[in-house]
Amino acid sequence: MSKVIKGGTVVTADREWKADVLIEGETITQVGADLKGDEYIDAEGAYVIPGGIDPHTHLEMPFMGTTAAETFETGTWAAAAGGTTMLIDFCLPGEDGSIKNAINEWHRKSAPQICADIGYHMAITGWNENIFDEMKVAVDMGVNSFKHFMAYKGALMVEDDEMFASFQRCRELGALPMVHAENGDLVDLMQKKLLADGMTGPEAHAYSRPPEFEGEAANRAITIADAAGTPLYIVHVSCEQSHEAIRRARQKGMRIYGEPLIQFLTLDESEYFNKDWDHAARRVMSPPFRNKDHQASLWAGLQSGSLQVVATDHAAFSTEQKRLGVDDFTKIPNGSNGVEERLAVLWTEGVETGRLTPSEFVAATSSNVAKILNIYPKKGAIVEGADADIVVWDPKITKTISASNHHSILDYNVFDGFEVKAQSRYTLSRGEVIWAWGQNSQPQPGRGRFVPRPPFSSAAKALSHWKALNSPRSITRDPMNIPAGI
Amino acid sequence: MSKVIKGGTVVTADREWKADVLIEGETITQVGADLKGDEYIDAEGAYVIPGGIDPHTHLEMPFMGTTAAETFETGTWAAAAGGTTMLIDFCLPGEDGSIKNAINEWHRKSAPQICADIGYHMAITGWNENIFDEMKVAVDMGVNSFKHFMAYKGALMVEDDEMFASFQRCRELGALPMVHAENGDLVDLMQKKLLADGMTGPEAHAYSRPPEFEGEAANRAITIADAAGTPLYIVHVSCEQSHEAIRRARQKGMRIYGEPLIQFLTLDESEYFNKDWDHAARRVMSPPFRNKDHQASLWAGLQSGSLQVVATDHAAFSTEQKRLGVDDFTKIPNGSNGVEERLAVLWTEGVETGRLTPSEFVAATSSNVAKILNIYPKKGAIVEGADADIVVWDPKITKTISASNHHSILDYNVFDGFEVKAQSRYTLSRGEVIWAWGQNSQPQPGRGRFVPRPPFSSAAKALSHWKALNSPRSITRDPMNIPAGI
Amino acid sequence: MSKVIKGGTVVTADREWKADVLIEGETITQVGADLKGDEYIDAEGAYVIPGGIDPHTHLEMPFMGTTAAETFETGTWAAAAGGTTMLIDFCLPGEDGSIKNAINEWHRKSAPQICADIGYHMAITGWNENIFDEMKVAVDMGVNSFKHFMAYKGALMVEDDEMFASFQRCRELGALPMVHAENGDLVDLMQKKLLADGMTGPEAHAYSRPPEFEGEAANRAITIADAAGTPLYIVHVSCEQSHEAIRRARQKGMRIYGEPLIQFLTLDESEYFNKDWDHAARRVMSPPFRNKDHQASLWAGLQSGSLQVVATDHAAFSTEQKRLGVDDFTKIPNGSNGVEERLAVLWTEGVETGRLTPSEFVAATSSNVAKILNIYPKKGAIVEGADADIVVWDPKITKTISASNHHSILDYNVFDGFEVKAQSRYTLSRGEVIWAWGQNSQPQPGRGRFVPRPPFSSAAKALSHWKALNSPRSITRDPMNIPAGI
Amino acid sequence: MSKVIKGGTVVTADREWKADVLIEGETITQVGADLKGDEYIDAEGAYVIPGGIDPHTHLEMPFMGTTAAETFETGTWAAAAGGTTMLIDFCLPGEDGSIKNAINEWHRKSAPQICADIGYHMAITGWNENIFDEMKVAVDMGVNSFKHFMAYKGALMVEDDEMFASFQRCRELGALPMVHAENGDLVDLMQKKLLADGMTGPEAHAYSRPPEFEGEAANRAITIADAAGTPLYIVHVSCEQSHEAIRRARQKGMRIYGEPLIQFLTLDESEYFNKDWDHAARRVMSPPFRNKDHQASLWAGLQSGSLQVVATDHAAFSTEQKRLGVDDFTKIPNGSNGVEERLAVLWTEGVETGRLTPSEFVAATSSNVAKILNIYPKKGAIVEGADADIVVWDPKITKTISASNHHSILDYNVFDGFEVKAQSRYTLSRGEVIWAWGQNSQPQPGRGRFVPRPPFSSAAKALSHWKALNSPRSITRDPMNIPAGI
Ligand SMILES: [Zn+2]
Ligand SMILES: [Zn+2]
Ligand SMILES: [Zn+2]
Ligand SMILES: [Zn+2]
Ligand SMILES: [Zn+2]
Ligand SMILES: [Zn+2]
Ligand SMILES: [Zn+2]
Ligand SMILES: [Zn+2]
Repeated sequence: MSKVIKGGTVVTADREWKADVLIEGETITQVGADLKGDEYIDAEGAYVIPGGIDPHTHLEMPFMGTTAAETFETGTWAAAAGGTTMLIDFCLPGEDGSIKNAINEWHRKSAPQICADIGYHMAITGWNENIFDEMKVAVDMGVNSFKHFMAYKGALMVEDDEMFASFQRCRELGALPMVHAENGDLVDLMQKKLLADGMTGPEAHAYSRPPEFEGEAANRAITIADAAGTPLYIVHVSCEQSHEAIRRARQKGMRIYGEPLIQFLTLDESEYFNKDWDHAARRVMSPPFRNKDHQASLWAGLQSGSLQVVATDHAAFSTEQKRLGVDDFTKIPNGSNGVEERLAVLWTEGVETGRLTPSEFVAATSSNVAKILNIYPKKGAIVEGADADIVVWDPKITKTISASNHHSILDYNVFDGFEVKAQSRYTLSRGEVIWAWGQNSQPQPGRGRFVPRPPFSSAAKALSHWKALNSPRSITRDPMNIPAGI
Repeated sequence: MSKVIKGGTVVTADREWKADVLIEGETITQVGADLKGDEYIDAEGAYVIPGGIDPHTHLEMPFMGTTAAETFETGTWAAAAGGTTMLIDFCLPGEDGSIKNAINEWHRKSAPQICADIGYHMAITGWNENIFDEMKVAVDMGVNSFKHFMAYKGALMVEDDEMFASFQRCRELGALPMVHAENGDLVDLMQKKLLADGMTGPEAHAYSRPPEFEGEAANRAITIADAAGTPLYIVHVSCEQSHEAIRRARQKGMRIYGEPLIQFLTLDESEYFNKDWDHAARRVMSPPFRNKDHQASLWAGLQSGSLQVVATDHAAFSTEQKRLGVDDFTKIPNGSNGVEERLAVLWTEGVETGRLTPSEFVAATSSNVAKILNIYPKKGAIVEGADADIVVWDPKITKTISASNHHSILDYNVFDGFEVKAQSRYTLSRGEVIWAWGQNSQPQPGRGRFVPRPPFSSAAKALSHWKALNSPRSITRDPMNIPAGI
Repeated sequence: MSKVIKGGTVVTADREWKADVLIEGETITQVGADLKGDEYIDAEGAYVIPGGIDPHTHLEMPFMGTTAAETFETGTWAAAAGGTTMLIDFCLPGEDGSIKNAINEWHRKSAPQICADIGYHMAITGWNENIFDEMKVAVDMGVNSFKHFMAYKGALMVEDDEMFASFQRCRELGALPMVHAENGDLVDLMQKKLLADGMTGPEAHAYSRPPEFEGEAANRAITIADAAGTPLYIVHVSCEQSHEAIRRARQKGMRIYGEPLIQFLTLDESEYFNKDWDHAARRVMSPPFRNKDHQASLWAGLQSGSLQVVATDHAAFSTEQKRLGVDDFTKIPNGSNGVEERLAVLWTEGVETGRLTPSEFVAATSSNVAKILNIYPKKGAIVEGADADIVVWDPKITKTISASNHHSILDYNVFDGFEVKAQSRYTLSRGEVIWAWGQNSQPQPGRGRFVPRPPFSSAAKALSHWKALNSPRSITRDPMNIPAGI
Repeated sequence: MSKVIKGGTVVTADREWKADVLIEGETITQVGADLKGDEYIDAEGAYVIPGGIDPHTHLEMPFMGTTAAETFETGTWAAAAGGTTMLIDFCLPGEDGSIKNAINEWHRKSAPQICADIGYHMAITGWNENIFDEMKVAVDMGVNSFKHFMAYKGALMVEDDEMFASFQRCRELGALPMVHAENGDLVDLMQKKLLADGMTGPEAHAYSRPPEFEGEAANRAITIADAAGTPLYIVHVSCEQSHEAIRRARQKGMRIYGEPLIQFLTLDESEYFNKDWDHAARRVMSPPFRNKDHQASLWAGLQSGSLQVVATDHAAFSTEQKRLGVDDFTKIPNGSNGVEERLAVLWTEGVETGRLTPSEFVAATSSNVAKILNIYPKKGAIVEGADADIVVWDPKITKTISASNHHSILDYNVFDGFEVKAQSRYTLSRGEVIWAWGQNSQPQPGRGRFVPRPPFSSAAKALSHWKALNSPRSITRDPMNIPAGI
């Protein structure tokens, strides 16, 4: 049975035009004028865009002695309500350290629950021969990106030599290294210093992780990636300092990608100074919100192309969980929400203000990351042959964001009170309408699928080729000109 | 009668994939597997890319007391042989200063000659009410971009207030201002100084136009565009100095585009120090070739997106014409060739080295400028509905560039001796094979068409909206707090 | 009769140490421990610093249809009360355009009035042979610096070619070119546009002169100076944009100096949004105060050495004069006060906060500009042989700045309400105590002298030498390789 | 018995003027015209400058399994012949790790040998309570600077947390942290990779330590210093990458100092590609020489003030010692010479070309580092009360540098063949002529003295104050707004 999305303006990363979209089964089969089908989905007055891809979520993640409250079901469902049809979740190795087992464990948790599609990034939290070997297994299992934590000392953090080894392995495998860029040594020492000075509240969280620590780590990771000869993706870019490091690298031709979060584009550090402890603690995440000056930098990055992807780092801990750190800010579980709000907030603050064109909005919310992660145009595109992950985006449905009307499991919302000017009228996942605004849509756990991603993106191949051509060459010396040694 | 381009790898600005391309009449009607048609064009082992668009040519341009030797026929023919199916030529007002008359004059010259499609940029070389009015006429005639010369004092050069007026007019009309960025006052004074010091040879041309003069003008034009609230396109970016100005503007969110030339990416100023006067004079153009350090900057700009378009500024003067300046470098007609070599040289130095991916090559040679000039995806794309301007690009046909084997009217070639590793196997213009390598293709003057371009690109609209939202606001003062005046 | 300044801590640009200072006549004759003399000046608990030099004042300047209210007497007297013992005033040519006559006219006005020493910068407001010739006369008369206005179109503004000619002349004479850097064309157009939009209040003054216009002009002036081969001094640097241009030039080895004003370091554009018209209009100056972000840039410039001198651009117009522009912001006489407050405010905001060391304070208030203007160590130093222009600077005398307690002729003060933490206990001009805090000091008009300044600073000489070594060289070509021409 | 240096032009960091210099005992007692004394030293036609201070030497240093060949006697003697009267040598802890013992050991070695004065920097090569305690001892013993190696993994290298701890301790003590900035993890891995690839020659040394590794470490050290609240001195800045990090920090107001070496200003990496193994190996040092592009950056740093000090890192290993690495570049002892050549080469390439003024030459060779290390004006100045460490610098004595005419113990010279245009006519150390050109001067081992340096430079005090004023502040929350916890 075929469907036609009728009467809308299709917006892709490269253009916008009036067209209908024909879907047969799970796939887009035609984009053009006056298409016919068995069913019609009304897109009059709306935009038709690729379903959002949020490349940075932590669902049910065991972390800091607890587990993120958002489940694979509620997370993918909230995402769908917000116009996002694919999440890339971070997979962490378990006690045994095995990558393969971790991926299987993530499958076990996610498969019965997910309402839309999913992929994983694999975390590299140490280095040994088994990890070296299993990185290949991960790639074979469809995971083509590896995350490295430069912070969380004593837990997830890796050292420079481990990163170099892993990045080299990524180059061999055609996989993409990613980093959480904060100097973990310095954060650790600053936390101890602040606690020693009696500063225990959530504001100390911000003080313990200044933008300089993020910029330093970003710069270091870039240096390592350049030495290893691989592109690099820097997650949750929050500030001018790391953005500057990215720009500086890119203007030398290095292939570095940067991902600001929707939170960082619109919220600022004054939230941590709120007189209500709960309010402040709910916003505790790493890196923290920055002062407003940084927002202009991030927006300009999206406009100029030095930053490519807007994500959420959705890691939802309940108020009760946040209170684990009531006496010690370092014990507040790190994370905030956004998987449902990302598109609406970005549209409101980006497109409605003229900062971004509609195409740039699409690029930042789906197409760019699909290209970077090498699943384009299966995802992130509206083109014949692509998965029918589509959102009918209505620029006239306003909403005031609130915990009372959101779909997350969370008991609060960091965007509470924010007035958005657009929402998803319909969200389709592989051809199926999984969310329809104003109608009684229900989650369908288990219908989502894991999407394997192939290695060797064109950027990785080109860079690797360039590095090979420009590798060190030995000087040939006449034995007469080499001393005998001693 | 339909045609299918069979067996190739389609490369667009966003991806590469194995597919056939079906053409009906002048238009692409399908892209996919196993297509059938009346005729087949063999693309086995080759890439199938959008026909190149060279956005910067000067065919038969009256300039410096002579007329550029390349005709609309030979220019479009050489372009086609090199894989370029559309040129945007610079239209200069005549004696009467009328824009409308100039466009008609350009039509008169080009229409009977052109072998493939064409468009114009209109030059604004002064400012008055008539020009203000006729800019609207130009837009209505399909010319949505206006060029401003900051150099050539006493001839084409305009002043800052004229540029501001024209840029504001561009914003109203949704047209794109462009600049030739060099400080004309300083060039003029430096020329006089060098001549006074007895320096008359072509090397003095380079000395008279240092990169600092280009950077200064680029920065100034950007300031004016920002004040007027319009995007800006900077032609023939040759150096780090102007590239730096562009990057600096872009990282503030300004919408500035930069166009390096294929000459600047691969040739350097040592050509002017050649002991053979003719050799040096043939390379005289403005801005001049720069030292090699600048090349790395330009390549990185293409990689990172701070520069978007590779053009040629093709303005071909014969050796005999060049000799007009034998006693005085300021009389050497400015211009060099490249319309035929652009794709092959960029592929060889860009894609074969790993600097650029094939998609980035396509973006730089056609798609980006089609977007910037608002004719995408009619041009610059391989998608259903687009004009069938297509090149079957063969990465195995090598050639040593030489005046003896090129298709330009010119008696020399600035890329002489350059070994290229790829060439066009077939060039199609609106569905017709106009060039087939190794076969006896002939120019078909008059078959090309003028392509009108609509105003109001999405970037222009977004920026104008942002500027309107952020325009100055009056302070409301109680009359009690305003003095009576004196 | 000798004097000893006893018991203080001498602070110079290079160090601080406990020492007495012996003065004989007008001159410092010894600096050391336990000095003896006929009289003693108590410096216990205080710093002993070189008298301030304010290199940027406009006393009794005819401007915008009126004349600056501060006289040479009140200006030098207020300066002395604030610890400044030398002013460099801007000399403007009169109707006849003669430089020589203008200097003589300035002598005529200043000589009978000045309470402390003075020098002039000469303004170049056009270009012709007479000006070329008279620049030499100015240098012979002791004026070694020439100011160029890039703004005030239709009045003082000069064009790029005029600046280049004048800068070249400066190089020949060993004189220092200076610029008021704002793009006068753009300011003019923006003023007209704002007035046309009905914006007549003082806030429109700020809107009409955005930081981008200043940065553009600074960058342009730098390019011209580099082409001419001369150092350049940029007056009243107000913003990151022009500071960035200066930094960028300096990091290429160019010899560019930048002068932030004490106003720009501490006051911001919100003053123009004040609901009281008079309050706002009194702050109208060009460039205008900027938003607070720019202040951090300027302070860092002083810390790192990319900016060298803190000045005031003291141009005092009374409230009544300001009201000339009550209906039209472009008619508000441009200028604000600071000659008396400069040291106290810079100390309070700079040294008391730890931004600047005491030596850096001295460098910024006297020594650096004395070096740049080639009168060091006669002025700006505490060393044997120097003029005894000395301030006993007391870090314990606080004051709330107010028009009621200042010494300027002005009926208001832009620093009104500012709490300063230090003041001059004694101010000596050439050995004479001309100001003693808490005692009934009186102005002594006519005791000040004009201080001639020699040309050819060491920086100018070095740069000129470098440029000569690196000037263009002709290529020698065999006549066989030069065509006959046509 | 008094001496007068007669008839010269005194050059200090702030000016140049004709003056005689009177010396009584070890001290300058007067600087002025027509001075009289018991003896006269002829300075006609010469400059009289402060004796050079080389802040970076490794005499008799145990390193890489051998000991640097230059002794305290030959090192200080060669220095004196070249116009340098004080060295600051790097003191390394011995087996017991004790700072105190190391300083005493350095005294034991140096005291009987040194021909002129000396000071030490103390290396921090690990972290524990004893080191924390003994840093205070070092300061009390007159060592106010602590060096941290970010390279030499497995040997001298320290980790980020150790650096942070040590830098904080420096702040408390008013001492100056210094870093050797190269990412030691990456160097180590790159060395292994190159060896594994069969690259054993000295050229691989350069490949194993690219400029990016230096820039990364500089940036990291700056971040740590900023977090700890202390100034930072970066030794042997060789490249644009670390210079860029320094500039970027300084333009935010951070107090970062950079020390290029005379080698890096004038020699380049092509030396490592020399066909003669010995030639290449003799130039092996860390960081290595860079390509020529970096030289322009370093010179501009000296001109603009972003770099302050020119040093040598003099660590002289004989050809025989160098051959320890004949089969493995990682075993070539790292170090090169320069202590004798520094002034002559800097004058020739700096002052004679117009890049530097004579005062800037003095600043870079003595005054700046004396200020930074808090021994100014005892050293680095020509002023009453200063140590009479003076050089009569003759700009007319030329020399071709060669191992045959140098005073170092070394059997080669990395500046071999370099034509210098100036030399020391007389070198005085605390009033005594220890070197006279063309006369049979002899080393006087043991006459030199250790010069203790006090802590708490004015820059350190100001910065510490600023940081204290801007430290984190707790938010005060009503207990009602803090949850009970769980
Ligand atoms: Zn993270
Ligand atoms: Zn995360
Ligand atoms: Zn041009
Ligand atoms: Zn052109
Ligand atoms: Zn001014
Ligand atoms: Zn002024
Ligand atoms: Zn070192
Ligand atoms: Zn060293």
